[in-house]
Amino acid sequence: MKKGSHSLIQPVILCGGSGTRLWPVSTPVKPKPFLELVGKRTLFQQALDRVADDTRFARPLVVSGAHHQPWIAEQSRSHTLIVEPVARNTAPAIALAAARLAPDTLMLVCPSDHHIPDTAGFIEAVDAAADLAANGFLVSIGVEPTRPETGYGYIERGEAIGKGHRTARFVEKPDAERAAAYLSNGKFVWNAGIFMFRAGQLLEELSQFRPEMVEHVRSSVVSGTEIAGALHPEAGHFAAIAGESIDYALMENTDNAAVITADMGWSDIGSWASLMDALEQPVGAAADLIDCKGVMVRSDGPRVSAVGLEDVIIVVEGEEVLVVARDKAQLVASLGGARGQ
Amino acid sequence: MKKGSHSLIQPVILCGGSGTRLWPVSTPVKPKPFLELVGKRTLFQQALDRVADDTRFARPLVVSGAHHQPWIAEQSRSHTLIVEPVARNTAPAIALAAARLAPDTLMLVCPSDHHIPDTAGFIEAVDAAADLAANGFLVSIGVEPTRPETGYGYIERGEAIGKGHRTARFVEKPDAERAAAYLSNGKFVWNAGIFMFRAGQLLEELSQFRPEMVEHVRSSVVSGTEIAGALHPEAGHFAAIAGESIDYALMENTDNAAVITADMGWSDIGSWASLMDALEQPVGAAADLIDCKGVMVRSDGPRVSAVGLEDVIIVVEGEEVLVVARDKAQLVASLGGARGQ
Repeated sequence: MKKGSHSLIQPVILCGGSGTRLWPVSTPVKPKPFLELVGKRTLFQQALDRVADDTRFARPLVVSGAHHQPWIAEQSRSHTLIVEPVARNTAPAIALAAARLAPDTLMLVCPSDHHIPDTAGFIEAVDAAADLAANGFLVSIGVEPTRPETGYGYIERGEAIGKGHRTARFVEKPDAERAAAYLSNGKFVWNAGIFMFRAGQLLEELSQFRPEMVEHVRSSVVSGTEIAGALHPEAGHFAAIAGESIDYALMENTDNAAVITADMGWSDIGSWASLMDALEQPVGAAADLIDCKGVMVRSDGPRVSAVGLEDVIIVVEGEEVLVVARDKAQLVASLGGARGQ
Repeated sequence: MKKGSHSLIQPVILCGGSGTRLWPVSTPVKPKPFLELVGKRTLFQQALDRVADDTRFARPLVVSGAHHQPWIAEQSRSHTLIVEPVARNTAPAIALAAARLAPDTLMLVCPSDHHIPDTAGFIEAVDAAADLAANGFLVSIGVEPTRPETGYGYIERGEAIGKGHRTARFVEKPDAERAAAYLSNGKFVWNAGIFMFRAGQLLEELSQFRPEMVEHVRSSVVSGTEIAGALHPEAGHFAAIAGESIDYALMENTDNAAVITADMGWSDIGSWASLMDALEQPVGAAADLIDCKGVMVRSDGPRVSAVGLEDVIIVVEGEEVLVVARDKAQLVASLGGARGQ
C-alpha cells in the first residue's frame, strides 16, 4: 500500500490477561503488558511504539480492564481509552472498539503483551494486510513457525491472494506430533493474535454469527458514560455477553478470512522460557554464573550465584524466589494463579 | 571403661575454619561452628552438648581465634578459653591446650563444626579410646565409611588392640578409584579429626618430631596473658610456628598411634550437599516444590518456589541467593572465598 492511498490505520491495543505465567514478576496487580521484560520499554509501550508513525497510524485506541487504568495512564500520553466493565475475551473487546469507529475505518487489532523485535517487518505485514482488509477481507497476521511449538494456535494458508493467502482453517494448540506435521507441511503459520478489518465489516459479519453479542455491545456503548476522556460501556449489557475469542466467534466462521505471513521475529512471551529466548542477554548484572549453561537470571536486588546448572531460570522479585527448570516453565502458571491474588 | 576408673576426660574443642564452603550462610564473620545448620543448636553447641556429662567430662577447654570470641561467649556459659593469636592449624592449637593441662590428663580433641547425630555411639567410642589412651596410645576416632568419599582422609587399621586397632597408616583425600578400593577393602575408616591422648605424652612425642613447635608453644603460654579468664598466648612466638595439622605433625609419625572405629553417624558438613544429607527435612517451611526430586531449600525469609528441579540446592541469605547443582556443591568454596571478606 502506498502511504496516503488510504486514510490512517486505526490501531486498537488490547490489554488483558491475568498475569500468572510470568509470576512472580507479573501479577494480577501489575500484569505482563506493563512490565519491562525486554529492553527499557514495557511491552505495552513497545506496542504503542510500533504504531507511532502518525503518517500511517491514527491515535491508538486502547481497550482494557479498569484495574489496568493506572498503568496505562503512567505509560502512555497519547491514546483514547475504552474500559471494559468485565473481561469477556477478545471478540466483545474488539466489537466495542469497532462500535466507536466510522464503518470504513481500517482497524489494526494488536495484543499489548507480545514481543516483536523487527518493527520494519511488522509494518510491512500491516501494509500488506491493509490492502486485503480494504478489499473486504478479515485479515490475520501470522508468523512463519520456526519450531514445532505446542503453545500456539496455527492458521493454515489456502490459495494465494494479494501479498497473502485465503485462510483455509484455524487450528487450536496442537499436540507435539501435529505441531511437527504443521511445521514440515509448510502451509501453517502461528496465529499471532493480530488482525485487520474494516470496523463496519467486522460488526456486520460478527452480527451474522453472534447477533446477541453485537446487540449487547451496541447497547452497552449507547448507555455508556464518558469519564475523563475514557468510555465506560454500561456494565449490565456487557456482562451479559458470553465471552469468546475473535478467532472462535468470527475468524473461523467467515468466508472472507485471509492471512498475511509476517517476518518480524514475534514471540508471545508466554512463559519464562519464552522470555529467555527473546532476551539477547538473559543474565542480569547482579548475577554470577559458574559452570552453567542455558541459565537465565532476573533479580530486583539480591545477587544471584548459580553453580553447575543447565537450562534453569532463576527469578528474584520482592519476597519471592522462583527457580524453574526451563522445560517446566509452563507449570509456573499454576503457582502464579494460586498466589497472585 | 567403667565410670570413675579414670579421672575426668578433658574435652578440647577446636574452633577454626574460614567459612567458605557453606557460603552465603557461613562467612568469616560468622563461620560454620556458630550456625544452626542441623536442628536448633549450633554445631559448636552440639559439640559442647556431647561432652556435657560431668560425671565423665571436665569443663571444656575451647581453643579459638579472636574473631570467634563473641560467638563463643554468646553460645556457651561453661568453658575455659585459649585465644590463638593467629591460626596455625591443629597441631599448635592442641599443643597449646596440652601445655595448660596436667601431664596425665586424658585429652579428647574435637572439632566444633561436625555433625554427630548419635551421641551414645560417640560416648562409646570415647570410652574405648580412653582405655587405649590411658595405656599410652595416641588414639584417633575414625568412622566406618559408607561410600567412596573423596572429600575425607582415611586411616588404615592394623592389628587389633583393645576395642580398636593399631594405626597402619594415614592417607590423604584419595581419588575416586582409590576411595572405592578403600571402601571395599574393609580396613579403612574415615579420619574424623577426633583424637585422645594424655597431655604429657602428646607434648613429649610432638617434641620428638616437631621440637621447635613445642618450644614456641611453651614460650607463648609462659609469656601469655590472662584476660577475663581467657588465656592469650604471646603472639610473637606463636606466629613463628609453621602451621601443621596434628595428623601430619604427629599421628603419621608416632609408633603409638591407634584407632577406634565409631558408629555415630558422623558428617563433617563440608558442603551444602553434605549438609543436605545430614538433614531429615531438607526443605524449609517457606518453600514450595512442584515436580522436584532431591531438592534442598534454606531461606532466611523470602519464599522459594522450585519447579521441575532435580538434585539442586537453593539458599537465600540476606542479599545473596545461591542455586547450586548438588554434585557441584564443592565449587561454592571459591565463591565464599572471593566474597566472604
